[in-house]
Amino acid sequence: MTRADGRSNDELRPITITRNWLDHAAGSVLVEFGRTRVLCAASASEGVPRWRKGSGLGWVTAEYAMLPAATNTRSDRESVKGRIGGRTHEISRLVGRSLRAVIDYKALGENTIVLDCDVLQADGGTRTAAITGAYVALADACAHLKGLGALPGDPLTGSVAAISVGIIDGEPRLDLPYEEDVRAETDMNVVMTGDGKYVEIQGTAEADPFDRVMLDGLLALAEKGCADLTRIQKEALAS
Amino acid sequence: MTRADGRSNDELRPITITRNWLDHAAGSVLVEFGRTRVLCAASASEGVPRWRKGSGLGWVTAEYAMLPAATNTRSDRESVKGRIGGRTHEISRLVGRSLRAVIDYKALGENTIVLDCDVLQADGGTRTAAITGAYVALADACAHLKGLGALPGDPLTGSVAAISVGIIDGEPRLDLPYEEDVRAETDMNVVMTGDGKYVEIQGTAEADPFDRVMLDGLLALAEKGCADLTRIQKEALAS
Amino acid sequence: MTRADGRSNDELRPITITRNWLDHAAGSVLVEFGRTRVLCAASASEGVPRWRKGSGLGWVTAEYAMLPAATNTRSDRESVKGRIGGRTHEISRLVGRSLRAVIDYKALGENTIVLDCDVLQADGGTRTAAITGAYVALADACAHLKGLGALPGDPLTGSVAAISVGIIDGEPRLDLPYEEDVRAETDMNVVMTGDGKYVEIQGTAEADPFDRVMLDGLLALAEKGCADLTRIQKEALAS
Amino acid sequence: MTRADGRSNDELRPITITRNWLDHAAGSVLVEFGRTRVLCAASASEGVPRWRKGSGLGWVTAEYAMLPAATNTRSDRESVKGRIGGRTHEISRLVGRSLRAVIDYKALGENTIVLDCDVLQADGGTRTAAITGAYVALADACAHLKGLGALPGDPLTGSVAAISVGIIDGEPRLDLPYEEDVRAETDMNVVMTGDGKYVEIQGTAEADPFDRVMLDGLLALAEKGCADLTRIQKEALAS
Amino acid sequence: MTRADGRSNDELRPITITRNWLDHAAGSVLVEFGRTRVLCAASASEGVPRWRKGSGLGWVTAEYAMLPAATNTRSDRESVKGRIGGRTHEISRLVGRSLRAVIDYKALGENTIVLDCDVLQADGGTRTAAITGAYVALADACAHLKGLGALPGDPLTGSVAAISVGIIDGEPRLDLPYEEDVRAETDMNVVMTGDGKYVEIQGTAEADPFDRVMLDGLLALAEKGCADLTRIQKEALAS
Amino acid sequence: MTRADGRSNDELRPITITRNWLDHAAGSVLVEFGRTRVLCAASASEGVPRWRKGSGLGWVTAEYAMLPAATNTRSDRESVKGRIGGRTHEISRLVGRSLRAVIDYKALGENTIVLDCDVLQADGGTRTAAITGAYVALADACAHLKGLGALPGDPLTGSVAAISVGIIDGEPRLDLPYEEDVRAETDMNVVMTGDGKYVEIQGTAEADPFDRVMLDGLLALAEKGCADLTRIQKEALAS
Repeated sequence: MTRADGRSNDELRPITITRNWLDHAAGSVLVEFGRTRVLCAASASEGVPRWRKGSGLGWVTAEYAMLPAATNTRSDRESVKGRIGGRTHEISRLVGRSLRAVIDYKALGENTIVLDCDVLQADGGTRTAAITGAYVALADACAHLKGLGALPGDPLTGSVAAISVGIIDGEPRLDLPYEEDVRAETDMNVVMTGDGKYVEIQGTAEADPFDRVMLDGLLALAEKGCADLTRIQKEALAS
Repeated sequence: MTRADGRSNDELRPITITRNWLDHAAGSVLVEFGRTRVLCAASASEGVPRWRKGSGLGWVTAEYAMLPAATNTRSDRESVKGRIGGRTHEISRLVGRSLRAVIDYKALGENTIVLDCDVLQADGGTRTAAITGAYVALADACAHLKGLGALPGDPLTGSVAAISVGIIDGEPRLDLPYEEDVRAETDMNVVMTGDGKYVEIQGTAEADPFDRVMLDGLLALAEKGCADLTRIQKEALAS
Repeated sequence: MTRADGRSNDELRPITITRNWLDHAAGSVLVEFGRTRVLCAASASEGVPRWRKGSGLGWVTAEYAMLPAATNTRSDRESVKGRIGGRTHEISRLVGRSLRAVIDYKALGENTIVLDCDVLQADGGTRTAAITGAYVALADACAHLKGLGALPGDPLTGSVAAISVGIIDGEPRLDLPYEEDVRAETDMNVVMTGDGKYVEIQGTAEADPFDRVMLDGLLALAEKGCADLTRIQKEALAS
Repeated sequence: MTRADGRSNDELRPITITRNWLDHAAGSVLVEFGRTRVLCAASASEGVPRWRKGSGLGWVTAEYAMLPAATNTRSDRESVKGRIGGRTHEISRLVGRSLRAVIDYKALGENTIVLDCDVLQADGGTRTAAITGAYVALADACAHLKGLGALPGDPLTGSVAAISVGIIDGEPRLDLPYEEDVRAETDMNVVMTGDGKYVEIQGTAEADPFDRVMLDGLLALAEKGCADLTRIQKEALAS
Repeated sequence: MTRADGRSNDELRPITITRNWLDHAAGSVLVEFGRTRVLCAASASEGVPRWRKGSGLGWVTAEYAMLPAATNTRSDRESVKGRIGGRTHEISRLVGRSLRAVIDYKALGENTIVLDCDVLQADGGTRTAAITGAYVALADACAHLKGLGALPGDPLTGSVAAISVGIIDGEPRLDLPYEEDVRAETDMNVVMTGDGKYVEIQGTAEADPFDRVMLDGLLALAEKGCADLTRIQKEALAS
Repeated sequence: MTRADGRSNDELRPITITRNWLDHAAGSVLVEFGRTRVLCAASASEGVPRWRKGSGLGWVTAEYAMLPAATNTRSDRESVKGRIGGRTHEISRLVGRSLRAVIDYKALGENTIVLDCDVLQADGGTRTAAITGAYVALADACAHLKGLGALPGDPLTGSVAAISVGIIDGEPRLDLPYEEDVRAETDMNVVMTGDGKYVEIQGTAEADPFDRVMLDGLLALAEKGCADLTRIQKEALAS
């Protein structure tokens, strides 16, 4: 059984990371996982939220959103509806937590970096593309701030990347596009550091509960995918 | 190293499940995990949301919330703030997905059951208590509806329970109270069916990323905890 | 003509006041008027709202709300709707005003006590139960703060209780449960101090306007009911 | 002791009722209680709210609001704040209930009349002016609809008026302007029908609880004031 | 071809400006353009918005709104809907900009004047009436503040008025009432200073795009209308 | 005096129009006016808003928004603030009106096309870029729908483009980037059809009111700019 796009089960879609896509932001990346396209912008500002003032520590947070025409069928704007949906909240929080896992707040000083991840086109894996791209934008922003002499140290303690895995027709697959995602019996998003440790695991049995054997299969695939993404991030930052 | 409340690392807090705590709801449970106290009410109504009409399939959803005085420091009401926070959204969605994992929509017919999980007192593990208690309320509601002849079949395909595990001072512990939760390096919530399969895994490295050995340790503890909760649920439903 | 629950027209439903129902709040009470069950929690904090700062005076306020499954038919959450309804606003204000009638702001010092009155189950008279229970929670909170040496004086200048009265089939009745409330031609809520003075009178002709004779009958009943509640409050606080 | 404006304690401020102040509304009144000035407009439309459809019964409701510059110090717009305050909700509901007390829903047929009461200038007693003026606008709207042959009967079963009374320096006074209102120990709003029955009583001890003697004094004053207003309403409608 | 109300194409409707319509505001005007009736109130307060603090400069802003019964068919309140519509936003901003065109911020000192323009009755041209009336209220407020010695200088650098023009059946007309406004092929609002310069031009082809000849015709009419209004404003302020 | 980017006063910035930038939308364009970059997506759906049902006529509308990192300093998301700002409302309405000026509703049939114009990067002229690009996306969407046989006729009656003009240091300039826009004494946006007629004129004196000579100068420049844009649109659609 082969996949619709001809990939093997443990193969990523074509990944591209275009740095400096915007002129104003301290760091910005257009990241593409196949047809999924996310614009990640890192905006830096002096100061931290009120609850953190005077601590000497910085802050990193993220906001995820999707343009109305990003999906097959146009979705309503959350600004027009006047409220943010649960899914948006959930992913924004996930992206923020994932990035904070590789941040040394002390080395950042009392500065705040906001990562805006706006999905321009969605074809599955938008949250994992967002995390993977946002890391690169964050790295660029840190380098930019260091160049300005604005940081007491080097805030990045490592790198972070994320990938989706799922069980389709009983077998584990890596990096699901939309058409596989909707068919997946189980769907898992895994966030890992560049040195192979877990930052976040979110696995959901969409249809049938899954057993430990399946879980181990998914974790192995995710580990492979995150390692591939780590390499691609490094190449992008080196170019 | 012992825990502040004298428990061993793989031991649950005292768990109590009080059924029929309310007079109106089709099913209702006051569930206690130590000092954490959640009121779970299952309200049944004919009909399903618009997008499901005419399908012959039922629907189960959940709403989680916390009373202002449930926590150590009073929190503002989300109704007063005029918007639901990300955490509330996230947990409501988790509870709903977890319960739907053991529901046969066809056997439910075009009926909707809403599970309201209101935290009366919070001491860690509110979402896992909510899932564990809500399952019992859901079971009671299904039995109630069957007794009325309102269901085409038996909608419950199994049972579901949830527990938190975490790494404190380098070692895995089961069922974290608040004081352990805030100190945990890694925090994981695991939802499992009564027959030992995974419904949902949500693991987060709060401080340091964790490795595969730690992950396996946490999963083993969670399996033990969910099995204990499954037994307690069965006893409650049998009484 | 007898009442469905066998009470005489001037008789309260069984009233129970359970103190210290929560672990965190400065004072907390589960109050029951028959099947109506309200959780009243008093949360104390240093400081007062901005408009009162530097005055040396304290502040007491209240928030009333109803859980979705409290009523016969599930009601939508106000947090989900994104706005608080008029009835909720109205009752929150009433509870706050009633409690402030027995507070010496100067003796409270610049401290704030918030009374959260959450209706866990509703069967008529929720606002009067809330006031009656909240007073006991407030008394406990004041005692608690005094024990901590946090108050310049004794803020309580008296006690306060509340009861509903109404005209059913032409005759006045005390403490209406839901089934009587919906049938009442006139419905009145009366808040009185422990020494028999009026704090608030809210009478509404639901169907036909009422005359002075009816009004006097209702006031007499309410006076009797509030005196009974005052005695029950005293017993609860003495135990 | 005399009042600042020279009135005796049982005397109304100068009351004027200007009918047909607007061109579009089915009925419209500019009502003035001294310097308090409220524009009351009755808008009629075919049909009733969904919960009443097919009942053959009509509906009457009201919305009260205050222009930002109506008060001494400009107040923020509720539309700008994005939410309606508790006071506004409370008064809107009071005005609606008061008018419905003299409406025969059957004679109205399945029509809805909305009374908009917008306070152009506030100097105490805005809610009582609103009720008193809205009744006249409602009467005009009913007459207008009857003239069009749009009503199955005569929906008005009587008239309704409202007045404030309060205790200032220990003595009861009628129709309080703002400067008396803020000083009142007790403040009561009374809504009565033209034939002297009570529709609504709302009495609040702003400072000290009041006793039965005071209450009787206030009720007597209010009765006198409502009778005066009823006469003025009749004259306005006759002109 | 004559207009329904008998006016010639370059003739204003009857314009009346009633000053001091309110007791509290620093300046207040009831302005009427035919049946269009707008209450303009200028509220002054010490201080400026945060972003302007310490600049020594004042601020002038405006809020436009329409009462529900102002139009032929009752419109819903924006406070009830919980959000301000695009049209309201647009006009509020236009009124504010127009008035600021004749304000010397330095001479105003760090004071803020808010112009509330509430449409009591709408018959076309509400925004132009609002601007024209608000200028007079603003002038009164400035004079009032000067009288109090609260201003460092004279903030008014000129006067401002506004008028609508449109193309109906191919010919330009001045000051459109509602029935002409809805039929207009092109609709333009022009704001001019008392000395004949443009502050704002907003022209919209409602049906067919218009050419330069039409545009010139509309501009000529508007110039004439604004000059007439300037004269009327002067007379009102002189009386 | 030359411009910072070396352009002459009547010269556009480099304009690029990239069609089919998205895979899902019926038409999509990335339009660039210098560094201003707007993604315009046309989403088509069967059916029209309720107020238009059964008319046989179609509908075209637009929503404009700006990504947080589009500007120099990050702006807050309107979805997070829970309300749409006045500027956003204003521009969305302008874009919609401009496009509707070249639509034959009958030829569109009961279909709706929504134009989403999301500013990815802002450097002045975002609304004019949005209109100019949205027209091309709309043309593509119409062609796409015609290809599907979904339209009764050809809905486009012409083309539409828009440009900003302004007075800087006393002289008129075409197509202002941000740094000129903030310095402009007068700022005007002009929307014209491909055959040189006006659809919308919005001119604002930011600092000093302007006279007729200046106005004529601005209109002449705008006419030239719109003609240039019309040619560029044609080329883009021909490629």
